[in-house]
Amino acid sequence: MIKLIKNGIIVTASDTFQADILVENGKISTIGSSLSAPGAEIIDAAGCFVFPGGIDPHTHLDMPFGGTVTKDDFETGTIAAAFGGTTTIIDFCLTNKGEPLKNSIQTWHAKSKQKAVIDYGFHLMIGEINEHVLGELPQVIEEEGITSFKVFMAYKNVFQADDETLFRTLLAAKELGALVMVHAENGDVIDYLTKKAIAEGNRDPIYHALTRPPVVEGEATGRAAQLAGLANSQLYVVHVSCADAVERIAEARSKGFDIWGETCPQYLVLDQSYLEKPNFEGAKYVWSPPLREKWNQDVLWNALKNGQLQTLGSDQCSFDFKGQKDLGRNDFTKIPNGGPTIEDRISILFSEGVKKGRITLNQFVDITSTRVAKLFGLFPKKGTIAIGTDADIVIFDPNVVRTISAESHHMAVDYNAFEGMKVYGEPVSVLSKGEFVIRNKQFVGTPGSGQYLKRAKYSLHTALGQTEMQSI
Amino acid sequence: MIKLIKNGIIVTASDTFQADILVENGKISTIGSSLSAPGAEIIDAAGCFVFPGGIDPHTHLDMPFGGTVTKDDFETGTIAAAFGGTTTIIDFCLTNKGEPLKNSIQTWHAKSKQKAVIDYGFHLMIGEINEHVLGELPQVIEEEGITSFKVFMAYKNVFQADDETLFRTLLAAKELGALVMVHAENGDVIDYLTKKAIAEGNRDPIYHALTRPPVVEGEATGRAAQLAGLANSQLYVVHVSCADAVERIAEARSKGFDIWGETCPQYLVLDQSYLEKPNFEGAKYVWSPPLREKWNQDVLWNALKNGQLQTLGSDQCSFDFKGQKDLGRNDFTKIPNGGPTIEDRISILFSEGVKKGRITLNQFVDITSTRVAKLFGLFPKKGTIAIGTDADIVIFDPNVVRTISAESHHMAVDYNAFEGMKVYGEPVSVLSKGEFVIRNKQFVGTPGSGQYLKRAKYSLHTALGQTEMQSI
Amino acid sequence: MIKLIKNGIIVTASDTFQADILVENGKISTIGSSLSAPGAEIIDAAGCFVFPGGIDPHTHLDMPFGGTVTKDDFETGTIAAAFGGTTTIIDFCLTNKGEPLKNSIQTWHAKSKQKAVIDYGFHLMIGEINEHVLGELPQVIEEEGITSFKVFMAYKNVFQADDETLFRTLLAAKELGALVMVHAENGDVIDYLTKKAIAEGNRDPIYHALTRPPVVEGEATGRAAQLAGLANSQLYVVHVSCADAVERIAEARSKGFDIWGETCPQYLVLDQSYLEKPNFEGAKYVWSPPLREKWNQDVLWNALKNGQLQTLGSDQCSFDFKGQKDLGRNDFTKIPNGGPTIEDRISILFSEGVKKGRITLNQFVDITSTRVAKLFGLFPKKGTIAIGTDADIVIFDPNVVRTISAESHHMAVDYNAFEGMKVYGEPVSVLSKGEFVIRNKQFVGTPGSGQYLKRAKYSLHTALGQTEMQSI
Amino acid sequence: MIKLIKNGIIVTASDTFQADILVENGKISTIGSSLSAPGAEIIDAAGCFVFPGGIDPHTHLDMPFGGTVTKDDFETGTIAAAFGGTTTIIDFCLTNKGEPLKNSIQTWHAKSKQKAVIDYGFHLMIGEINEHVLGELPQVIEEEGITSFKVFMAYKNVFQADDETLFRTLLAAKELGALVMVHAENGDVIDYLTKKAIAEGNRDPIYHALTRPPVVEGEATGRAAQLAGLANSQLYVVHVSCADAVERIAEARSKGFDIWGETCPQYLVLDQSYLEKPNFEGAKYVWSPPLREKWNQDVLWNALKNGQLQTLGSDQCSFDFKGQKDLGRNDFTKIPNGGPTIEDRISILFSEGVKKGRITLNQFVDITSTRVAKLFGLFPKKGTIAIGTDADIVIFDPNVVRTISAESHHMAVDYNAFEGMKVYGEPVSVLSKGEFVIRNKQFVGTPGSGQYLKRAKYSLHTALGQTEMQSI
Repeated sequence: MIKLIKNGIIVTASDTFQADILVENGKISTIGSSLSAPGAEIIDAAGCFVFPGGIDPHTHLDMPFGGTVTKDDFETGTIAAAFGGTTTIIDFCLTNKGEPLKNSIQTWHAKSKQKAVIDYGFHLMIGEINEHVLGELPQVIEEEGITSFKVFMAYKNVFQADDETLFRTLLAAKELGALVMVHAENGDVIDYLTKKAIAEGNRDPIYHALTRPPVVEGEATGRAAQLAGLANSQLYVVHVSCADAVERIAEARSKGFDIWGETCPQYLVLDQSYLEKPNFEGAKYVWSPPLREKWNQDVLWNALKNGQLQTLGSDQCSFDFKGQKDLGRNDFTKIPNGGPTIEDRISILFSEGVKKGRITLNQFVDITSTRVAKLFGLFPKKGTIAIGTDADIVIFDPNVVRTISAESHHMAVDYNAFEGMKVYGEPVSVLSKGEFVIRNKQFVGTPGSGQYLKRAKYSLHTALGQTEMQSI
Repeated sequence: MIKLIKNGIIVTASDTFQADILVENGKISTIGSSLSAPGAEIIDAAGCFVFPGGIDPHTHLDMPFGGTVTKDDFETGTIAAAFGGTTTIIDFCLTNKGEPLKNSIQTWHAKSKQKAVIDYGFHLMIGEINEHVLGELPQVIEEEGITSFKVFMAYKNVFQADDETLFRTLLAAKELGALVMVHAENGDVIDYLTKKAIAEGNRDPIYHALTRPPVVEGEATGRAAQLAGLANSQLYVVHVSCADAVERIAEARSKGFDIWGETCPQYLVLDQSYLEKPNFEGAKYVWSPPLREKWNQDVLWNALKNGQLQTLGSDQCSFDFKGQKDLGRNDFTKIPNGGPTIEDRISILFSEGVKKGRITLNQFVDITSTRVAKLFGLFPKKGTIAIGTDADIVIFDPNVVRTISAESHHMAVDYNAFEGMKVYGEPVSVLSKGEFVIRNKQFVGTPGSGQYLKRAKYSLHTALGQTEMQSI
Repeated sequence: MIKLIKNGIIVTASDTFQADILVENGKISTIGSSLSAPGAEIIDAAGCFVFPGGIDPHTHLDMPFGGTVTKDDFETGTIAAAFGGTTTIIDFCLTNKGEPLKNSIQTWHAKSKQKAVIDYGFHLMIGEINEHVLGELPQVIEEEGITSFKVFMAYKNVFQADDETLFRTLLAAKELGALVMVHAENGDVIDYLTKKAIAEGNRDPIYHALTRPPVVEGEATGRAAQLAGLANSQLYVVHVSCADAVERIAEARSKGFDIWGETCPQYLVLDQSYLEKPNFEGAKYVWSPPLREKWNQDVLWNALKNGQLQTLGSDQCSFDFKGQKDLGRNDFTKIPNGGPTIEDRISILFSEGVKKGRITLNQFVDITSTRVAKLFGLFPKKGTIAIGTDADIVIFDPNVVRTISAESHHMAVDYNAFEGMKVYGEPVSVLSKGEFVIRNKQFVGTPGSGQYLKRAKYSLHTALGQTEMQSI
Repeated sequence: MIKLIKNGIIVTASDTFQADILVENGKISTIGSSLSAPGAEIIDAAGCFVFPGGIDPHTHLDMPFGGTVTKDDFETGTIAAAFGGTTTIIDFCLTNKGEPLKNSIQTWHAKSKQKAVIDYGFHLMIGEINEHVLGELPQVIEEEGITSFKVFMAYKNVFQADDETLFRTLLAAKELGALVMVHAENGDVIDYLTKKAIAEGNRDPIYHALTRPPVVEGEATGRAAQLAGLANSQLYVVHVSCADAVERIAEARSKGFDIWGETCPQYLVLDQSYLEKPNFEGAKYVWSPPLREKWNQDVLWNALKNGQLQTLGSDQCSFDFKGQKDLGRNDFTKIPNGGPTIEDRISILFSEGVKKGRITLNQFVDITSTRVAKLFGLFPKKGTIAIGTDADIVIFDPNVVRTISAESHHMAVDYNAFEGMKVYGEPVSVLSKGEFVIRNKQFVGTPGSGQYLKRAKYSLHTALGQTEMQSI
């Protein structure tokens, strides 16, 4: 089946131009002015931007956490993602100490295979390093195509790894060609401050933020960066929320270290005061790291503009307000961490970033798609509009104005963290490998049509661009 | 006339892919796999990279300096540029205090119009700010399309402007939409150290470097950056040579200032020891800022990699060793500053940068072409390979190994600063607006065929990418 | 004549202890517990601190400025100083370009000789460097004992020196053994912003501050520090007012540069909002650099605490509100810069610093006296309480609470910048070379009894302490 | 018994002057010129400096470590200290998890009581924080006068505490008035690198340094500083060895944190190359942190000069080369860490610091004595020469030249780390509380005459100086 997308404005990480796109066999075959193709289905994109499909590097679908499970699974989650213009996600596969990694990976395949409506890959959590783990990693990379490992410096006695584990993971990643992702908060300090707050009767949601101050994130970020430098390895800091952490990343990059940073939409537009909303509503805004004082937003935007941070992940991790978030009604430590963000990640960056002049269209594409593909071994199959790439394409109407609301969103969760926020722009149609998933704002995809992506090994060259011609 | 470039690997600032390019009416009309076009001239690019033509943001052709005139004029200079893969240059139009700016501009038009074989634009030197100058600037921008102004912080009693002039130029540029370029060295200190060296009988070329130590460049760079921040204006630091200056630029960018930095091939591969070559040969390596201690090269490469520096200019400013450089045989202060670099700028960055893994192919294209076009109001007409852009295209064979030499170069000057250096890669054919200038390594262009480019105003958005669709 | 000061608490830059002091021939001869000395005049210091007399490194007495002359001369100024606990001042001797330095020095001797009631020295302004000036400097140092030179980076077309002058002064000072003092503000930028403000009708006192923003001071401070580092010379930055400048000094000191910083009482306790006082009262608070936003005060206090700044000068430069400050009633640029601070310098530091726990008693003595003596070649003759030193002694009652007011102050000027401020502590008696100048809060000194001090050459060792035994 | 020290040059942290000292009842009663005292024993100090006795804040006497015990105990160790001009030591009392702190303290009293020839105090190691430990701390402070706690960030599975322990110790110290001392190295990383080195057959002493690179110290130092800032507590970083750590301390101090740094003589004059000495001699130079590349020495000296570091500890921890160090002959991890430095700490700082012009005499006294007393609650009883203080006095001949050697030293250990080093200056006589311990270079003291010192609580004011008169 051939499709011809006509009259749109194509935007890539470096270019913006009016042209038509011919899609054949799920891939882009021709880009040109006034193309014609007998028999092709014509898609009129006049007045719209044509972006490469978004890639969300940070989701937690169908994930057990704190005695409950995230509300969105691979079906509702990927449908919502598609509505938001995302055509690929990389989800975090949790592991259990003492258990073979492959078991966890199989669990994650089972969660996703029949459900995903867009393509997806997995990151793998590393909770311990020992001979068993080291023995399995080559297979994880070669056979499963999982080329990114996540280490937690927080969540003491749950996910938290010690510095030796982090350091050895960095060394192993260097050797094997993987990217180490780190949740950078000092879990020891948080653990103590949290217990102290509870002991003193400070149980409201705001104490979630007050017991994880910015220095706790800055310290851990700097520590991880220094260990990465010592290991001569590569590091990706997830969900950067504050100036302290940005400074440490910038400092490490200035030294030539191979270090990258991701922020999330919530840190760009929400702030710590949301945790003080009455009637326990603050619980909706419990993320780790927590929302910060508002002035940090400017620092994050500037970091996206000048390249100190490179990507935007949703950190999608949704829990219902009723029945899940309220597990912590009398104890903030029992509020499940996270929120629903997979659907609005791209809209918010477009509306608050591009429309408000903080970043450009090309940077927007780089941040939401291209750079993610390059960092995580998906480029150039995914992440751009070029000859031979997968036709993962978003036709985006920049002139629509809409209001974000749980009433209209497509996630399964019962609230939206950005409720009431007015945003400019909305995906009209979304194609995955040349097939419509969203067509004229209606879901037309099929659970199970999303394919698992084996990803290429990490290399700095791929992360920065390409040095060699690569087969596509 | 229609041309079809087949089988090459197209490289842009973000993408690398195999495809064919159809050129119609001097512009790129279609990009696709296995294109055909009846009647088109076929150009086989198999085994080659297809780059957007290089844009050299920093040349001095036919320029009077120190009682002599640069050896290369707009004919020999642009021919050499084309051989090197450059299809656009922006030359510095010098001005004289007390004289209308338009006179200087007319002089520069006269130098270039009949001679240039590729397209070109002008930057304008600002030596003073007064009502006359301020009165002329709007015309300079609107009518001449000159949207970048150069201020010298060095060359005391010659080009040097005081801080008030720099500051007012920054304010005017902000208001009018121009980019301020600065030669950042503290001319006062240099002037004293230079006189002192001569008075003490230190007259050899090496004293050129020793009387302009790195701190002199770092200080001026920091000063210019702070004035730009205060003026809320935009600044481009030319020919950054050392770590001190890189640090100041990085610091300013971290604060969110709109500041950019250019380095030059000579700072990437040559070092201060070259000035000590015997038999006055050191004079060939007299640039301002001077070549630095070798360790600075790593800092510059890292800055290109991580985006602290964004462009590569040649600072082409050639003088014959015999008859020109030797004016300073007994007094280094009389050695004309500068060297011949326009032809090898791109080869050196490809060979030392891409081939050695310091930067990627996509970064290489950004640094030599795309970012320059964006910063200087030429994008997207120039600087990329996309539908509707000028067909300024370089077909580049990455597998050739050649040795740089004055014997084979095409500049008019009698030596080559990179003599004997082995480089990988060479342009095979070069097109300007769809017409061959270089064909199978032979010059086939026509002096006078290069067109003067009126450039768009500076805006941060254009510099970073685009926010709006722009007509091409 | 022998005096015995009994029962006081002696405080030096390092020690605090109860003991008696025996003064013979104007010098301290013995310190001990329960001393007795037949025939000695007993001074009871019970309940009081006994400090070394304050040394004010920064005064402008009887100085012409902006068409008028500072109100306080060497008589009223030094009497007020003595009331405030200061027993030595170093005043700035202004010079005129093209005129022998010795003429200016003679003028300053003439102003002071018959009038000073405490000892005094001179700093010398350097407005130009040429063979005449360089020829005179050795005599200035050897014969006049003037071992500190002041260079202005601001006051364009009045005092402002260019960078060459500053750099050459630094080199000469290094060679000759003098300390270079710098007024660090970028005069070019200020000059333009000032003219622009006036042209736009912004004529109120607050525009004095708005046309000299902190970055203007930070930039010049950094520039001076870098030139000092390049010259391998010594630098003392006067009247540091803001965080920008503190950071640059700290940075230079971390690199091992020999750089020192002084702040003033007005920057520690007043802020920019004072310039907005109605009825032109803001004019009373016009200093250069200007008062800053209040948060800078914390930075300055911390810098005094941790040693990034080392001294406190008054920058005494008093003009009557009526008849002098009001020269600028319709044009802030015509307001004479400066204020009356010589009398309250020490009280304010004690009350706001020691009493509020920001610095310690020993630091207080170091900042107001000891370090000043060490930096400016007066130690150990002045600046401490030790055997053999001049008996310049302040008996200070820390328990008095008084309110600063023009009604009770002893300066000749018609207002007090700290009017209404409540301070703890007051000098009860003050001795200069063993003789009372203030006795039980009454002036009992004699104009002309103050002696001119020839000061020793600068060396880093003296500034930091001593390495060799020095004769006293 | 009355003693009169005549004709010496008294040096304090701020002053240098010639005077006599009268000592009565073990305390200084009078300082003056040409003092006489009928019946006093006259000590002629002509040609000598008279310093306050040195205070060594960091010793490990009679300490079990790695299956052996340090060679010097409280008798040989304090005798050697006295020969070197030290009259007070503070030794580290080790504790065992799960055991009452008081048991450990009793053990340390038993080790020292009958043996010490000079006064001494204890620091207390904190290996864990729980209700038992928190319950005992008030007594430790109030009854034992132990007001400084040591936390180890290295020695995994031996002494190493986790971040929660460090953080809680900082909080407790803040509340109780104690100073937290930290051994700042990342033990996790070291543990891994060490095991890896051994596994790869890298067993020579040099691998001790290579498995503990500077970044490991810098990271831990920065982490501790950030935790201290968050806790609003006070921190003292022991044995700072390298630029990385100095930078982190300076950064924290600039932010106003209450943080202090100590270096040791070995880091000032020895370097990493010593570990490569043949015949296993490198083992003599195994300290943790390890000796560093030589350029770090300049950074340390500059930090002492400009106040970024404030004290010099010996980290005395001696093991015989034969029988102890050689436990690690085939495995560097089994080499007992540490060396004999208590005797030469002061001589080395005088000779390499004062004599070579890197620091001044007054700084020397501050670093070796005064500041230590202020930081550790011993001032003004100890640490200065002032009326009422303990007569702990060193009469030091600066003109002696001697060669450090195990043959002539007084420590019990069989080698000297500074063997063959020529130093200027030597204590001639040393008094503790007015009694000779060393007289004319002979030991004349008595084991058991040294008294245990209960120390005052920590406060920033005491550390910086004094704000209130304190009873003596």
